Amino acid sequence: MNKRMKCTLAYDGTHFSGYQVQPGKRTVQGELERVLTQMHKGQTVRVTASGRTDAGVHACGQVIHFDTSLSLSPQQWKKALNALLPDDIVIKHIQEVDASFHARFAAKAKEYRYKVRNAEERDVFLRHYCYHYPYRLDIEAIKQALRFIEGTHDFTSFCSAKTDVDDRVRTIYQADVAVNQEMLEFRLIGSGFLYNMVRIIVGTVLEVGQGKRSVDSISTILAAKDRRLAGPTAPPQGLYLWKVYYDN
Amino acid sequence: MNKRMKCTLAYDGTHFSGYQVQPGKRTVQGELERVLTQMHKGQTVRVTASGRTDAGVHACGQVIHFDTSLSLSPQQWKKALNALLPDDIVIKHIQEVDASFHARFAAKAKEYRYKVRNAEERDVFLRHYCYHYPYRLDIEAIKQALRFIEGTHDFTSFCSAKTDVDDRVRTIYQADVAVNQEMLEFRLIGSGFLYNMVRIIVGTVLEVGQGKRSVDSISTILAAKDRRLAGPTAPPQGLYLWKVYYDN
Repeated sequence: MNKRMKCTLAYDGTHFSGYQVQPGKRTVQGELERVLTQMHKGQTVRVTASGRTDAGVHACGQVIHFDTSLSLSPQQWKKALNALLPDDIVIKHIQEVDASFHARFAAKAKEYRYKVRNAEERDVFLRHYCYHYPYRLDIEAIKQALRFIEGTHDFTSFCSAKTDVDDRVRTIYQADVAVNQEMLEFRLIGSGFLYNMVRIIVGTVLEVGQGKRSVDSISTILAAKDRRLAGPTAPPQGLYLWKVYYDN
Repeated sequence: MNKRMKCTLAYDGTHFSGYQVQPGKRTVQGELERVLTQMHKGQTVRVTASGRTDAGVHACGQVIHFDTSLSLSPQQWKKALNALLPDDIVIKHIQEVDASFHARFAAKAKEYRYKVRNAEERDVFLRHYCYHYPYRLDIEAIKQALRFIEGTHDFTSFCSAKTDVDDRVRTIYQADVAVNQEMLEFRLIGSGFLYNMVRIIVGTVLEVGQGKRSVDSISTILAAKDRRLAGPTAPPQGLYLWKVYYDN
């Protein structure tokens, strides 16, 4: 009898060509499936994630599911997987779930965080873990700009022009930023996110903070539904898939 | 007229084969000399450091000196060097000094720190920046053990057997550990350090904390002058050359 397992994991995205399997590339999904297939004596195991992350993007709480014929306790699963996985992926939690659970389709909301280091000098130890933005910022203006992001909007202007999704209406429940000395931590919780959406939002509100754009330009950009009006896509190393929310 | 420059720098040791130049290897000294030689239009510039660091060991405050015929202000030097250096080395401070200054021979004391993460699970984001030690530790025992390290001793037992230095007497002014949640930060300030000395001290007092050795075993080990009596060499990624002290 097959069982469905739900698994929460963290990974350092620095040395991955993103989450999703690509031939000849090192990916998170590729490593997970390689290890699970090994545990199943060569029988191919496929995993399904809540969504992809790009090259260089990190995760603290990515969620995947997979089906298995093995009979292991959650503790045994966690120990075995963590012993076999490379040191830039770690399993934080694993549990058996109902066969109807689906990591992607059952997700109710997602939380992303984006870390910015607002200081003049580079920090060699944080270069892969935040975006170094050395310009003076008006934090209050950034907070006000983020208010315009909250709510239900068509986010066409804030997603990659390459996006092939037709419905670009999403609801952002929370969009704010916490400041701790030179570190800014953006926190976005939403029903769903379009391709590059968090990175374009951050890239745009940083320009608001720098005085290059006005606070209420955000509503103009939203209304225009045109990617060219928003700011640049902030780089991947500041982004963290923080949490995926499910019912219960 | 040549000027002597004193320079304080930080580096992430993860992707270096240590500080010192080795043919065919990526080293900190190699990168510094490559960039300085480039700035001097191909005329070879050599740098002298306060001391070496091993592969994987980090620095927050390594000090070097070099001689130059260029006439740049400290600010121009810093900007030019940081623009040319790779992203895992950063110049924090540079100043002109008297020709008698010597980064190694003028050093009065050095401070090293060693970071240990005492938690059950791996942290993918810290794997290159601390030593993951998942065993339960008696912090009070570690603190008491470190007391025996302070003072003037022959540290033969706490240096690599490969050391070719004859005089192994050093003075440790301060040896303690600060605990912040799951992170332990060892701090050692001394007149000088032998090869692998900090890492062997940490490897040994962690065994005291784990209950594998008694607190006062440290004085027995010191007295024996035998490397085989001390504990293992803690791994390089937890170690930071924190500061080099000079007169004035």
